[in-house]
Amino acid sequence: MSDDTETRQRADIQALLRAHAAFYEAFATRDFAAMQAIWATRLPIACIHPGWGALVGREAVMTSWRTILANPSSPRLAVDLIDVTVYDSTARILAYERINDAVLIATNLLAREDGAWRIVHHQSGPTPPPTEYATVPPHRLN
Amino acid sequence: MSDDTETRQRADIQALLRAHAAFYEAFATRDFAAMQAIWATRLPIACIHPGWGALVGREAVMTSWRTILANPSSPRLAVDLIDVTVYDSTARILAYERINDAVLIATNLLAREDGAWRIVHHQSGPTPPPTEYATVPPHRLN
Repeated sequence: MSDDTETRQRADIQALLRAHAAFYEAFATRDFAAMQAIWATRLPIACIHPGWGALVGREAVMTSWRTILANPSSPRLAVDLIDVTVYDSTARILAYERINDAVLIATNLLAREDGAWRIVHHQSGPTPPPTEYATVPPHRLN
Repeated sequence: MSDDTETRQRADIQALLRAHAAFYEAFATRDFAAMQAIWATRLPIACIHPGWGALVGREAVMTSWRTILANPSSPRLAVDLIDVTVYDSTARILAYERINDAVLIATNLLAREDGAWRIVHHQSGPTPPPTEYATVPPHRLN
């Protein structure tokens, strides 16, 4: 692999991780405008919040985030990355979400839209505390 | 779009849905060989079973399925598709899983490997009964 290719790939992974971090930053700071911006606008999106059904399409997904982010009790949110995998034009990031005292596990799917990584899918659900089973040492995102 | 392109795309979606159905067929019939065959062997895979942590890599994922499928009490399993979206070389299928009396909701990620659709990721978690919130009328897969 040439140095140029390696540099480009490294920059691409950094852009991917920044997009993923921006998603959780928007969540933690209850910034609906930032949340709208980090989700794809042209590609089809979907979202499964913990204990919810599936929300399909931008209108349903954004309505849910507007409701969630309007909640004035800001959650204490920490994110641990488990795995980052790029499949060509899409990427899958698995992460633990520590929201207040609960630990959730999430699948986040990102895709390239007009040259930028955007969230196209999020599913989050309950999980036991990570130390009991972790197969990959999670490293802290922020 | 030419008739040829439309025919190819229709055939590709049918192949995708057959791969997805084969995953649940292997699950329902506790066929570990079929389960091994439907997951990608070269592309990176991961799996989050309901209430489990993340399993990353083929060895961890297959060990989990071997354990789950070795359980002699065959679950009554029905699958309702919610949404099927193809993002170029990957595809995301959302589905309700009715396992015995529980309803789960799953994100299944498939990718093209050597020309065939293979499962690369599965997350399943609890959800309320679909009729309470369904935004898209689910249609029965089998």
